[in-house]
Amino acid sequence: MAFDFLQVPEQEAVWVAGAALRHQIEALLQALAVPAEHAQIVAEILTYASLHGVDTHGAGNILGYCGAIEQGVYTVPQRLEIVSESATTALLDAGNGLGFVSAHRAMELSIEKARAYGVGMVSVRNGHHIGMAGFYPMMAVAQDMLGVAVTNATPSMRPLHGTLPRLGTNPIAFGAPAGQERPFLLDMATTTVASGKISLARRLGVPIPAGWAVGVDGELITEPPAQRTDQWMQTPLGNTHEGGGHKGYGLAVMVDILCGVLSGGGFSAQMQPGQNMTWTMAVDIARFRPLDEFKAMMDEMIRTLHATPTAPGEQPVLVAGDPEFDAAAIRQERGIPFQRAQYEAIVAGAQRLGVEIFI
Amino acid sequence: MAFDFLQVPEQEAVWVAGAALRHQIEALLQALAVPAEHAQIVAEILTYASLHGVDTHGAGNILGYCGAIEQGVYTVPQRLEIVSESATTALLDAGNGLGFVSAHRAMELSIEKARAYGVGMVSVRNGHHIGMAGFYPMMAVAQDMLGVAVTNATPSMRPLHGTLPRLGTNPIAFGAPAGQERPFLLDMATTTVASGKISLARRLGVPIPAGWAVGVDGELITEPPAQRTDQWMQTPLGNTHEGGGHKGYGLAVMVDILCGVLSGGGFSAQMQPGQNMTWTMAVDIARFRPLDEFKAMMDEMIRTLHATPTAPGEQPVLVAGDPEFDAAAIRQERGIPFQRAQYEAIVAGAQRLGVEIFI
Repeated sequence: MAFDFLQVPEQEAVWVAGAALRHQIEALLQALAVPAEHAQIVAEILTYASLHGVDTHGAGNILGYCGAIEQGVYTVPQRLEIVSESATTALLDAGNGLGFVSAHRAMELSIEKARAYGVGMVSVRNGHHIGMAGFYPMMAVAQDMLGVAVTNATPSMRPLHGTLPRLGTNPIAFGAPAGQERPFLLDMATTTVASGKISLARRLGVPIPAGWAVGVDGELITEPPAQRTDQWMQTPLGNTHEGGGHKGYGLAVMVDILCGVLSGGGFSAQMQPGQNMTWTMAVDIARFRPLDEFKAMMDEMIRTLHATPTAPGEQPVLVAGDPEFDAAAIRQERGIPFQRAQYEAIVAGAQRLGVEIFI
Repeated sequence: MAFDFLQVPEQEAVWVAGAALRHQIEALLQALAVPAEHAQIVAEILTYASLHGVDTHGAGNILGYCGAIEQGVYTVPQRLEIVSESATTALLDAGNGLGFVSAHRAMELSIEKARAYGVGMVSVRNGHHIGMAGFYPMMAVAQDMLGVAVTNATPSMRPLHGTLPRLGTNPIAFGAPAGQERPFLLDMATTTVASGKISLARRLGVPIPAGWAVGVDGELITEPPAQRTDQWMQTPLGNTHEGGGHKGYGLAVMVDILCGVLSGGGFSAQMQPGQNMTWTMAVDIARFRPLDEFKAMMDEMIRTLHATPTAPGEQPVLVAGDPEFDAAAIRQERGIPFQRAQYEAIVAGAQRLGVEIFI
């Protein structure tokens, strides 16, 4: 959910159309020997995130992925391999390549299996960053299915009471289709906030709220740190014992089990920097009840939640996905705002690689 | 996770052996025409909760279930009916009966389907309270599977910014087996705390921490309310916008979709008092990777988490399930502590129904 103090100031923004951005990303990746089919997948997902207002996971990160390819951290072209498979399950090796490509394939496989058997589930090892986790459930939603994607990461979160990070931000994304209303799309880090929000606060030069990060003695940190070190940690959702911090921590371990332990790729605390394992699931709704009845009840639920009264002066009650779909409605018309420095860096990167400028 | 201020004072406790408690519950239910097979299931689950220290969901509640049967809120004997079924899925109608019986059957079915096809998933409608959600994943864990159970409830939680309750405490329970270590068992309300903890605080005459409950204008409530009304609400995990309250709220809606909308039984805000819909899933780990490798990595993960250093004077880092398994180790030897008034009420209830006293 958006925080006003983390918006890029409009007067500093450069606006880029989604289609142009997509072309730019494809061209950048292909210049680095990423196959066209894979480059298209990455461009689609990064542009989707940017269009949906998830700037922390959007196209602004493209140079980071390019760098990982150039430094040989990512294997390009990657080879996806199904290590084990059953009617409803698969274990996918991502070939140390782009996480987007393997997570996309994992959800495709999940959907195929759900279509055939009702449920499909894939765990991915040897992978990397998948971007906006919420993109993948939406692939299932487009097929009138429930979709789930979770992914683990190297440690930035402390377990409740701990003085060292042991878990990633380990996000959970869940999507369900509605009828006339927009889909339900929950996309949440199991930390109090996604780590990108702390980096963004640093870039914008604003303090972070107390409770997002702590030092090794548990002291609150409000000056956003420049980089990840063992001297500070993100807090689990709930933060303190009385606030339910054991729950955010527990959800992060659940994600670690589904992604890291089930795949064998490794749990957060034993992963190499830049690694991410992923787990996806699709569920064919129509196996349970007629799809139109499901969607009509989703509409009724969403309308009931939206109609919840709020105190005078308070923000309205939203439903998960509202901020993303609201942003997309605007950005599909107006384009995607970039901080000028970020925009110029992408242009410079394209020039360095001898790639045409589309943005 | 246990809160010290919510412990029953030892000097006021009456201690009851687990086996005796089980017999007492079976006898009470059978006196109310619950079939022996169903009474055994309920007794097993309530005693499991009490043995594992989850007193808010344990045998202390037996008179409430008896009352619901006597008042005709529950249909006894209940008839379970499979409304729709596929290789991996089922929709189960609980026949308006004991929620324990239908949730137990749902997990049995999930396990059967997972054994045959890798994954099994059941949504239950027309049901009631299932007690400790964490019991059901442990049925899957005993079969070397991952287990999940979630259940919705009538409204007690506000959506972020709302002035009316719209969601239940909608808990999530997830279990995974380990090798030499104890299983991982996450069992959490998606509210900041389970509602039973607020009732328990009232019974013990202690205030609740700020952030657990709010009034209609969002003012913090620390005096535990006597009963559920529209004048106060539980907070979602995360509580405030900056604390991530939209995440606890979003998880609660996810549970509502899996239980209420997928089953057609209804989402929290449209359910009748006392209703609960449920969703269970089992996953056959060995379809992904050899079971012994999975368990060895679970052990390593759990040991790594336990070994996380803490600041001087701080509590140690626990892993989800530790408080429950620690309590069980003690209570299997020493018995289950009841507040004297609660113990005497159960004895009086048994006498009223002409049932032998075992406790």
